[in-house]
Amino acid sequence: MIANTPTPPYYAVIFTSIRTKEDRDYEKIAFRMEELAKKQEGYLGIESAREGLGITISYWKDLESIKKWKEQTEHLLAQEMGKEYFYSSYKTRISLVQRDYTFEKKQVHAK
Amino acid sequence: MIANTPTPPYYAVIFTSIRTKEDRDYEKIAFRMEELAKKQEGYLGIESAREGLGITISYWKDLESIKKWKEQTEHLLAQEMGKEYFYSSYKTRISLVQRDYTFEKKQVHAK
Repeated sequence: MIANTPTPPYYAVIFTSIRTKEDRDYEKIAFRMEELAKKQEGYLGIESAREGLGITISYWKDLESIKKWKEQTEHLLAQEMGKEYFYSSYKTRISLVQRDYTFEKKQVHAK
Repeated sequence: MIANTPTPPYYAVIFTSIRTKEDRDYEKIAFRMEELAKKQEGYLGIESAREGLGITISYWKDLESIKKWKEQTEHLLAQEMGKEYFYSSYKTRISLVQRDYTFEKKQVHAK
């Protein structure tokens, strides 16, 4: 579930959002968008959680692949639905990942 | 709840984690760290959600302020507890936010 991204540099698109109460197949469309993103050139991974605030971070090889994904036809339609129905507010941040550190527990503690 | 960050460029520290089942005052310590971070020089905001996967993004003015926060005494102790007890795995990504876009709904739709 933690995205297995390559050695930096690469890009992260940080999408932070507040949902409206509208349903209109939101979950279905969000899932579909994730499936579509995975097929895009330059896609490196995705991480997502919602707890009141929703955070979705998608990782990309370069700005060109982010631009192509932003302009993908079905994704454009979903973005319009997002503004019209799904989100009361959101912020998208395009960022360049310069360094990363990973921790993996080697040993499980006995209770 | 969406962090009101200034015009880019600024930095985002993306911390993605999987928790263990250990409690040991995790919520209390996480809250305390958030309060401490807010007092650090160069702190710009924080966004957080957990849904199985936990994502916390803190925003900073520059790399120097990130370094100082990483080395803050009480935070160092919390990082050790994180590795020892709280997390089975995590990834920290240091990224430079280059652009951002904000959407705010102007009008509430009638049901």
